[in-house]
Amino acid sequence: MNEEFSITPWEVKGKIDYERLVKSFGVKIIDDNLKSLIKKVFGEIPKLIARNIFYSHRDLDILLNEYLNGKKFYLYTGRGPSGPMHLGHILPFIFTKYLQEKLSTMLIIQMTPDEKYVYHEDMRPSEVYNYTIDNIRDILALGFNSQNTYIIDDIRNINFLYPLAISVARKVTFSTARAVFGFTPETNIGLIFYMAIQAAPAFIGYFISDEYKYCLIPAAIDQDPYWRITRDIAGKLGFPKPAQIHGKLLPSLKATGKMSTSEPESAIYLSDDDDIVKTKILNAFTGGQPTAREQRLYGGNPEICTVYMYYYYLFEEDDRKLMERYTKCKNGEILCGECKEELSRRIINFLSQHRRRKEKIDDEYIEKYMIDSKVNLEDQIKKYLLLR
Amino acid sequence: MNEEFSITPWEVKGKIDYERLVKSFGVKIIDDNLKSLIKKVFGEIPKLIARNIFYSHRDLDILLNEYLNGKKFYLYTGRGPSGPMHLGHILPFIFTKYLQEKLSTMLIIQMTPDEKYVYHEDMRPSEVYNYTIDNIRDILALGFNSQNTYIIDDIRNINFLYPLAISVARKVTFSTARAVFGFTPETNIGLIFYMAIQAAPAFIGYFISDEYKYCLIPAAIDQDPYWRITRDIAGKLGFPKPAQIHGKLLPSLKATGKMSTSEPESAIYLSDDDDIVKTKILNAFTGGQPTAREQRLYGGNPEICTVYMYYYYLFEEDDRKLMERYTKCKNGEILCGECKEELSRRIINFLSQHRRRKEKIDDEYIEKYMIDSKVNLEDQIKKYLLLR
Repeated sequence: MNEEFSITPWEVKGKIDYERLVKSFGVKIIDDNLKSLIKKVFGEIPKLIARNIFYSHRDLDILLNEYLNGKKFYLYTGRGPSGPMHLGHILPFIFTKYLQEKLSTMLIIQMTPDEKYVYHEDMRPSEVYNYTIDNIRDILALGFNSQNTYIIDDIRNINFLYPLAISVARKVTFSTARAVFGFTPETNIGLIFYMAIQAAPAFIGYFISDEYKYCLIPAAIDQDPYWRITRDIAGKLGFPKPAQIHGKLLPSLKATGKMSTSEPESAIYLSDDDDIVKTKILNAFTGGQPTAREQRLYGGNPEICTVYMYYYYLFEEDDRKLMERYTKCKNGEILCGECKEELSRRIINFLSQHRRRKEKIDDEYIEKYMIDSKVNLEDQIKKYLLLR
Repeated sequence: MNEEFSITPWEVKGKIDYERLVKSFGVKIIDDNLKSLIKKVFGEIPKLIARNIFYSHRDLDILLNEYLNGKKFYLYTGRGPSGPMHLGHILPFIFTKYLQEKLSTMLIIQMTPDEKYVYHEDMRPSEVYNYTIDNIRDILALGFNSQNTYIIDDIRNINFLYPLAISVARKVTFSTARAVFGFTPETNIGLIFYMAIQAAPAFIGYFISDEYKYCLIPAAIDQDPYWRITRDIAGKLGFPKPAQIHGKLLPSLKATGKMSTSEPESAIYLSDDDDIVKTKILNAFTGGQPTAREQRLYGGNPEICTVYMYYYYLFEEDDRKLMERYTKCKNGEILCGECKEELSRRIINFLSQHRRRKEKIDDEYIEKYMIDSKVNLEDQIKKYLLLR
């Protein structure tokens, strides 16, 4: 692929070449050997791994071998609340929920209003605050277990993170941070420091419970720069390097591959009503032929079709049925219109269920998940005092 | 003065040329006009100002005029707990206590263990923690009013500062911070960000009470770089620039003028026992002649005498008696031995009273001063949401 693309934790431009990312980020593909190990641990290969949507990793093999030897690990993922959430945003949470349920392990969800606030220099505190609450409600609507799920809101719960964050920060020079994130002299000092806040939850498990020294981070691959620095300093703090499993980003509904923040029609938001969903899917870029006649004659190209991708990523769990749709498209036995109509139906159904669950999530419900309602800060600080 | 010196918030080298600092920092001398204004507000000229120990300022004139027009202001000072406190460290607190009592105003005392932790990369969290508690006890032993004195421990109370700190941080570029503090590519990102934490209390008054939009910072002049940047961004946050009044540093007991952290014998620590005090004063650098005979013949040089400086700064309140000591020394009517013996006696007396007061200060006593026991975080966050 020759198209240009760039990917940072804050912006994705162009059509992403995931093979090239693996090389440039220095991560590893989840290969067949690792898939066998995963099967040993989970009893199956998770759908999102089998379909290579969660496709690369760092130290996942080491972590799972430790797990088979009796070492527990916790999960850590997060969300930057810069706006309403779309289907692409919940993909890592759907995967994370699967992992948590399969392993009955602790999960830390970090909400990063501070990151969004220092990145978008014109954003008002009230905007970031409102998105934080709204996004938490969307995430919890997916049905996480309140017993072992801990939400950390960077702003309200900063006292749980700050001692760890400064321990991280004093080990990271500006020069290192600049090399990894591409900072310039004009970057603000809030954004420069912020990586330490995002690194902290990769070690916080131990400060909640002695048994959690190991951490696995399931997240979209654009977050990888954070984990690179986090891994660099883990040893200096006396911790194993946190392992990662990286997901691809849900493709745009537009041909350009450009991400959604600037183009709302390129993604389905969890708040989109039925008509908006229908319109967006109707206008989605497909791999179909210009006319029905040609489609029947030559067949379509599901490989480049965003509608097919939506089935592949989220809306067709059944591999056999997915293959059938692929073959039918290739053979010209199905028209784009039918394919789109069915997808719209499935999305509308998913969203209406999602919103019904979301409606029930009020402040009291959220409270049960927040770290400050579950962890005693004084106990945690006592443990921090033992840090090197 | 031709000697070389350098002064930063973290290190002071050489003998300080305070006149030159005024020029290089771009602050103003407290002149006779300002002294008249001060007398109008306080009913007298505070001793430490009359003696030019608190000698320079930014916008103190503007602030006091606003005050005479009915605008209240609060005080903000602080302490970096990198070790035990010596007499030089409490000088700004003695002055601040005077200001608070005279004006019955709110006072914020910031403890900055995070600054010391990120600056001294080999310091353990437990060390910084222990110094924080010990230093708070020393400060409170000076007798601050618990009704309107708020201590903020940057680590334990970070949730009260962080929303403001990131509002500051996103307005400060690396390039600006580097120019003011002399950061290099090898500076760690914790130290780079830290200035935003020290800036936050200059605005926090308003978030505690609507009536406090104006702030006066009494502090040693080495802290000035922080206030320079803080003032730069104040307007962007919708606040007036905080005013400062700058103090000189208590001179070293050694001729070199080098500061105390690396040379414990250059300063009197609040924990020094009677014998140590006697020894340190006995070995102090004076302006005396080599022999008693020469002293009687030619007289001494109180201008360069560290023993005289201690009387001047802290241990002779009575101007007439101070002048008498000066003249007697000049005329050879008093020998260094007598002068030292009397100073030792006064210091020992001060320290024993100080320690008696400090002994009574336990966790319960401290609790009454901590911001989290007096300010409701949720209320404060609601006010942050109104920030630009």
